[in-house]
Amino acid sequence: MPELRVIREPREMRFHAEDLRRDGRRIVLVPTMGYLHPGHLSLLQAGRSRGDVLVLSIFVNPIQFGPKEDLARYPRNLQGDLAMARGASVDVAFVPDERAMYPTTPLTRVVVSGLTEGMCGARRPGHFEGVATVVTKLFNLVQPHVAVFGEKDFQQLAVIRKMTRDLDLGVEIVGSPIVREHDGLAMSSRNAYLEPDERLQAVSLSRGLAVAEKRFNGGERGAAPLLAAVTDELAASPLARLDYAELRDAETLEAVERVERPAVLGVAAFLGKTRLIDNRVLSPQ
Amino acid sequence: MPELRVIREPREMRFHAEDLRRDGRRIVLVPTMGYLHPGHLSLLQAGRSRGDVLVLSIFVNPIQFGPKEDLARYPRNLQGDLAMARGASVDVAFVPDERAMYPTTPLTRVVVSGLTEGMCGARRPGHFEGVATVVTKLFNLVQPHVAVFGEKDFQQLAVIRKMTRDLDLGVEIVGSPIVREHDGLAMSSRNAYLEPDERLQAVSLSRGLAVAEKRFNGGERGAAPLLAAVTDELAASPLARLDYAELRDAETLEAVERVERPAVLGVAAFLGKTRLIDNRVLSPQ
Repeated sequence: MPELRVIREPREMRFHAEDLRRDGRRIVLVPTMGYLHPGHLSLLQAGRSRGDVLVLSIFVNPIQFGPKEDLARYPRNLQGDLAMARGASVDVAFVPDERAMYPTTPLTRVVVSGLTEGMCGARRPGHFEGVATVVTKLFNLVQPHVAVFGEKDFQQLAVIRKMTRDLDLGVEIVGSPIVREHDGLAMSSRNAYLEPDERLQAVSLSRGLAVAEKRFNGGERGAAPLLAAVTDELAASPLARLDYAELRDAETLEAVERVERPAVLGVAAFLGKTRLIDNRVLSPQ
Repeated sequence: MPELRVIREPREMRFHAEDLRRDGRRIVLVPTMGYLHPGHLSLLQAGRSRGDVLVLSIFVNPIQFGPKEDLARYPRNLQGDLAMARGASVDVAFVPDERAMYPTTPLTRVVVSGLTEGMCGARRPGHFEGVATVVTKLFNLVQPHVAVFGEKDFQQLAVIRKMTRDLDLGVEIVGSPIVREHDGLAMSSRNAYLEPDERLQAVSLSRGLAVAEKRFNGGERGAAPLLAAVTDELAASPLARLDYAELRDAETLEAVERVERPAVLGVAAFLGKTRLIDNRVLSPQ
């Protein structure tokens, strides 16, 4: 097995990246908050073939959590993560701590408007600013040619694509498909929070999306009946509480009333205190 | 004379910068809006000794101008600028047009809070967002090791220093002293707007700062008498209209009542429609 290099200091990461670039190596970054699961492994696998040096970053970024969110209890398991990284042929694990990433009070934010107005952006004020800011920092430190993000965080992926273009970050952004449990639940580090009964009912998100997709494949194009498939499924699960279900243009993320171009059906729901998201892209032929 | 390479396309600039970095060359960037004067030449001279490849960028950045500001009439003279660049041993002139820098509607802004609340930030809403955003783009395209900015734009320099640190841009920021006309007027491309009688009275900004400095050197530490030196001088010039005079901590840019650490005395005034700025740093021993 190739050796995994673990880097904790941003300065060391930058120097290493500069060395790699001077040597003409192609760098691929998979940014994560750790507590790796098979969804992350699929990102690493997608990244592995796209360059010479595969960098996994693990950083639970405080500035993307709201004051009432789950920063303090977010699950962590660095030793387990590093073992999985070795298994996935990761070359470099960049694992900075909070003091290293924010040594002085940060005053700078990267703000992406428009795309962040609905869906999670409307429910989590400041979240995407925190994401865009830390991803900009990670890109500057790791200097990747390619970065891989999961499509489960569909809005995040759209925000990062736009930011990368707007700021000329020079990174190719790759989206990687959602990985699901056997019953359809989208994999997420936050699934670890679920009590057994919540876990059973958490499948209502993906089941609602599947019903909507079936209606779509049967010819339905209207937002209301497609969204009703999702909300009805959640309403039938007493432990689930809808946060939002929205149908939006897959590129601009503007709300759509009828699917005429690819659209994303996004859903967020609470199971107890745990907030889960899922989505499905509906593409007319 | 070494040959000047003129690059118009951001993509070509990026590829050239990547080549230079792979060759281990040290890149220095002097970002400007063109219409070069001896103040710019001093920036180029400061930059020349700090690296192997001296890049001058010329771009009148629309997103840093307010709707009622002077974007349309901002002076331009590309051929003259390129001649001066050759004389200053510039290696690369990066001269993108607006369509190249903003090919799609930009939704992303780099926002620096705190430092932008007073002085020009308070008078020109959105200005420093526009500056921070375009400088981030230029840094990503030119990939400099060092960038040189004039101290005349003192607040801009502070914003760029903080942004560079916060976003891990990895660029060393160098400030270069104000260059003045014989009578003391700080050099600026906007001086070209001045009518002869306005030009004569424009010296009131630097003269007021000089009087304040004399009082400071005589032991005065209070904001009110130091600021009065500036406002009295402007009041005595009928064509000048004060925009602001402020005394602020030279690092945090917080307003100060007494100078106990280095402070900046900043002034902005209109001569007719032309807005000029100037400043002086007051450092107690």
